[in-house]
Amino acid sequence: MPVISQKGLAMPQSPIRKLVPFAEKAKSRGIAIHHLNIGQPDIKTPKGAIDAVRNTDLQVLEYSHSAGFQSYRNKLAAYYQKHGIEVGSEDIIISTGGSEALLFAMGSVTDPGDEIIIPEPFYANYNGFATASGVKVVPVISTLDEGFALPPISDFEKLITGKTKAIVICNPGNPTGYLYSQEEIRQLAELVKKHDLFLIADEVYREFAYDGLKHHSIMAERDIDDHAIMIDSVSKRFSMCGARIGCIVSRNKELMATAMKFAQARLSPPTLAQIAAEAALDTPQTYFDEVIAEYVSRRNTLVSGLEKIPGVKVAKPKGAFYCIAELPVKNADAFAQWLLESFDYNGKTIMVAPAAGFYSSDGVGLNQVRIAYVLEEKALKEAIEILAVALQQYKD
Amino acid sequence: MPVISQKGLAMPQSPIRKLVPFAEKAKSRGIAIHHLNIGQPDIKTPKGAIDAVRNTDLQVLEYSHSAGFQSYRNKLAAYYQKHGIEVGSEDIIISTGGSEALLFAMGSVTDPGDEIIIPEPFYANYNGFATASGVKVVPVISTLDEGFALPPISDFEKLITGKTKAIVICNPGNPTGYLYSQEEIRQLAELVKKHDLFLIADEVYREFAYDGLKHHSIMAERDIDDHAIMIDSVSKRFSMCGARIGCIVSRNKELMATAMKFAQARLSPPTLAQIAAEAALDTPQTYFDEVIAEYVSRRNTLVSGLEKIPGVKVAKPKGAFYCIAELPVKNADAFAQWLLESFDYNGKTIMVAPAAGFYSSDGVGLNQVRIAYVLEEKALKEAIEILAVALQQYKD
Ligand SMILES: Cc1ncc(COP(=O)(O)O)c(C=O)c1O
Ligand SMILES: Cc1ncc(COP(=O)(O)O)c(C=O)c1O
Repeated sequence: MPVISQKGLAMPQSPIRKLVPFAEKAKSRGIAIHHLNIGQPDIKTPKGAIDAVRNTDLQVLEYSHSAGFQSYRNKLAAYYQKHGIEVGSEDIIISTGGSEALLFAMGSVTDPGDEIIIPEPFYANYNGFATASGVKVVPVISTLDEGFALPPISDFEKLITGKTKAIVICNPGNPTGYLYSQEEIRQLAELVKKHDLFLIADEVYREFAYDGLKHHSIMAERDIDDHAIMIDSVSKRFSMCGARIGCIVSRNKELMATAMKFAQARLSPPTLAQIAAEAALDTPQTYFDEVIAEYVSRRNTLVSGLEKIPGVKVAKPKGAFYCIAELPVKNADAFAQWLLESFDYNGKTIMVAPAAGFYSSDGVGLNQVRIAYVLEEKALKEAIEILAVALQQYKD
Repeated sequence: MPVISQKGLAMPQSPIRKLVPFAEKAKSRGIAIHHLNIGQPDIKTPKGAIDAVRNTDLQVLEYSHSAGFQSYRNKLAAYYQKHGIEVGSEDIIISTGGSEALLFAMGSVTDPGDEIIIPEPFYANYNGFATASGVKVVPVISTLDEGFALPPISDFEKLITGKTKAIVICNPGNPTGYLYSQEEIRQLAELVKKHDLFLIADEVYREFAYDGLKHHSIMAERDIDDHAIMIDSVSKRFSMCGARIGCIVSRNKELMATAMKFAQARLSPPTLAQIAAEAALDTPQTYFDEVIAEYVSRRNTLVSGLEKIPGVKVAKPKGAFYCIAELPVKNADAFAQWLLESFDYNGKTIMVAPAAGFYSSDGVGLNQVRIAYVLEEKALKEAIEILAVALQQYKD
């Protein structure tokens, strides 16, 4: 038998994946599941984006330029400028989802054995990309009690070694829903300047900022042009996750020339999806206004519903569409499995993501779950009710 | 300044990329260029594939399953079975182009410092994927004089070390156009069994086999089920390079479970393109018959044209749509640049890919170029004439 790589064996499974067989069993027992576990919005993709593909008169579906369509990059630069981020098309490489942009960024700034520091809890696939790159994730803890605010800079500094190459943040945060203040972004800017590190900001949820709060991009801090790498994606913004279009944005020329070599090796991002993504940029502001209003209302329903359940604690999200909730259980993993395996309320149950998978430190977040509010309000209310009943019945 | 990774600095540029600025200068001087340098077919994508996308009634462009649509995987398994390859959908993971399938395969079987053996000349991006994975490519030379047939197995065995994890072949070959015989595939099967290696076969050109020759897949050798990993793609088969749909196929369960973890980290292959690729499987055989007839006729024109030029030597391709030609020049790199910079014939010139970039050994293939016959016959004839005149004028 030929042998699998160490890296391959070490690749983590997503925290949700382990529950899938149990969800399938629940379904086969005729039990309906409210999915609070996924980041797939139910919002409609802007009609203009889908229509652009429906109306294509392409006859040969060719590779695009490895950096993406020039026309799309121009329009994207204009979009960023409108949002106060002064970049040109030369500062943008179109990628296959934000996922590939993260891989390009990691490949360009780290070698096997290097370290990246990430405030935890964080998007679990950062672990996968780090493992694939042979890179060690060094977590710095943020807590529910602090609403998942940026940990003190001194906590970062304690962890910086000669092998540290970058700090990665997600803003607004998946799974926390936290939105960094301008002051917090400034602190990070000073930190990466002081220690000559890259600052990689995953801003795929940038448009989802609530309560009148403004999103602060690292790209607006002009003293860290050489440090700042922004990751972006159309997946959530336009509810077009399946398009697989994202981008990596930086004003560091050497970094972009390096990322470009990774981009060239894989030839091109998807052509049809770029057509859709380019058209999506014409989506009127009213679309976002409606979507944001919908998420705010869902969030309010969720948070006030959760707060009414005895023993449940939640940090009110300021952005994105996730929140971390602490439950009155010892082991949220076992609870999530029990919900699918042994429980139902009028033939229905819920699926949640145990939060331990979003922490890199062992033994942290064991009594927390991530809840995505990507369900319409009626279903969301029912899901909260189911959770309340389940917590009454559950003994661990 | 934060520092770029060693890996990023080591990432190779494509052999064509260096010529692009010269091509741009030629165009700005008003000179028309026949592109013999690229693998982008001019053949129309099957209408059914494009129509499937044009007719989609998707309202939310969702992530697909990380392994791809089940419906597409089922149809793909049936397609392979029709071609004598007995696989089920569970043996297939849909990837973002053959490119991503190659990355999944490399990540699953190699760790940094490991080695893979590849007959050279080979598809240049294998270098990029290897560098990205921290893996060393160990070339075993195949020669134009032997028509780029499989090198003797003893040549492979001399190169196998404790770090060798896989042998990679491309069949039919880019850039050679060579099609391995069943006997050659058998030899490789015995070799990987004996040394417990993976055999990764890039079969993206499988449909392009000429002169009545049959393509022999490694997947038909049932004694290497645990060793065989096939890479495939719709890019060339259906002239839909921009779709970015490929797949990794293997009956080794552990390998597939590992590749699946890489697939999950990047969430999903493109949804719209999968719709197109699934529909493309209904393309009638007449489409391929016409395409193959067209390529055979182009190949014949090209090879007989090249053979008439004094000092030019060529191995007649049996498949794919490339060939390697030896030119009466010392340095094909300089010649390719000169063609764009300093030459024209009635306001026209040609762009070819210097073959040195397809060799991993230093100093090999310096007087060779790769020619892709993806031009229609009239343009191809003119391109050959231009090459003949250029070689008369060129002094190196
Ligand atoms: C924080 C974060 N970053 C990146 C991604 C990757 O998304 P995509 O590859 O679809 O752009 C996701 C998807 O859920 C995410 O939540
Ligand atoms: C030999 C070979 N393998 C793989 C690929 C990758 O193609 P894709 O990623 O478009 O499937 C190519 C493209 O030219 C190729 O020539």
